[in-house]
Amino acid sequence: MSQLLDNVVGELSKLPGVGRRTALRLALHILREDIEDVDQLAGAIYQFRRDIKRCSKCNNLSDTDICPICSSERRDRTTICVVEQIADLISIENTGQYSGLYHVLGGVISPMLGITPSELKIDLLIKSIAENSVKEVILALPTTIEGETTQFYITRRIENSGAQISAISRGIGFGDEIEYADPLTVAHAISHRKKL
Amino acid sequence: MSQLLDNVVGELSKLPGVGRRTALRLALHILREDIEDVDQLAGAIYQFRRDIKRCSKCNNLSDTDICPICSSERRDRTTICVVEQIADLISIENTGQYSGLYHVLGGVISPMLGITPSELKIDLLIKSIAENSVKEVILALPTTIEGETTQFYITRRIENSGAQISAISRGIGFGDEIEYADPLTVAHAISHRKKL
Repeated sequence: MSQLLDNVVGELSKLPGVGRRTALRLALHILREDIEDVDQLAGAIYQFRRDIKRCSKCNNLSDTDICPICSSERRDRTTICVVEQIADLISIENTGQYSGLYHVLGGVISPMLGITPSELKIDLLIKSIAENSVKEVILALPTTIEGETTQFYITRRIENSGAQISAISRGIGFGDEIEYADPLTVAHAISHRKKL
Repeated sequence: MSQLLDNVVGELSKLPGVGRRTALRLALHILREDIEDVDQLAGAIYQFRRDIKRCSKCNNLSDTDICPICSSERRDRTTICVVEQIADLISIENTGQYSGLYHVLGGVISPMLGITPSELKIDLLIKSIAENSVKEVILALPTTIEGETTQFYITRRIENSGAQISAISRGIGFGDEIEYADPLTVAHAISHRKKL
């Protein structure tokens, strides 16, 4: 078969969730597109990887040294929400309910994966808290062992910073059925019930 | 948000079956890859679109003027299998059961889509039949109205070429359940039953 086709199918099938069949379908789609459009696709992929920066204040993805959130005058600089990854930040931004700043750890503490606290830019977080006279740090971390460890570690590191520390609420999601929720979530939802 | 991220998510979500959520997941995957690997991915996409050729004999995808199948000495040059698209050729090749040549129409006759017989390289097919003294032309076309029309049209055009014309068999697929097969297929399978 064609080397060029083999090559593009091989490369595309390295993407998560893309098998060889899907990769072939994508390749044959690319074949039908205008060359300018394919150039834009390939260019966007490469430029993104080459030019994207990490915000020097919060570690968010950014085109510039400081990300649009950190440089915005409309954000509440006295609140910082700590998340594991960019996708979590995007998810929270999409709600439109949060107007504070973020801190993107870029991972959680994991002895298994060899991720130590020093890699999570926690010194940068402490610096941000001091610089902005932050009043509240919201921890929005995963409920895994690693997430809990990270939450515990960060709490210990910043407990004397003067900022209130909080964690996002846990419970049964809106639209989720209690019947199908995992036992841990149900137990938490019961024991942390709220007075009406 | 980041323009570079927006851009790559926008481009990726133009691919078939890729929504914005999947595109974001792919982008964040790309972010974690080595820049050389991303360069290879982007390069493979663009090079494929830019450099891929159509075989001047059978219209198959090819890196060279004549595709590996048409130039192979091990293929039976007296049999040509006519398919609508490259994906069909790949599917037949993958069986390892066919050793003849192909002719890729690149579509089927469709007044709705404005695809006329002249676009389907049928003259090229007729030329191949004459040049190779072809003994059999196998039509492996879709069972749509357009596919049937195309089959009828090609049959008319080549009926005096001296080649035997055949069509792939239709029926219930191996592993398919009769219960769930469409009525047309079941009807065909019954009326075209084979003696054992």
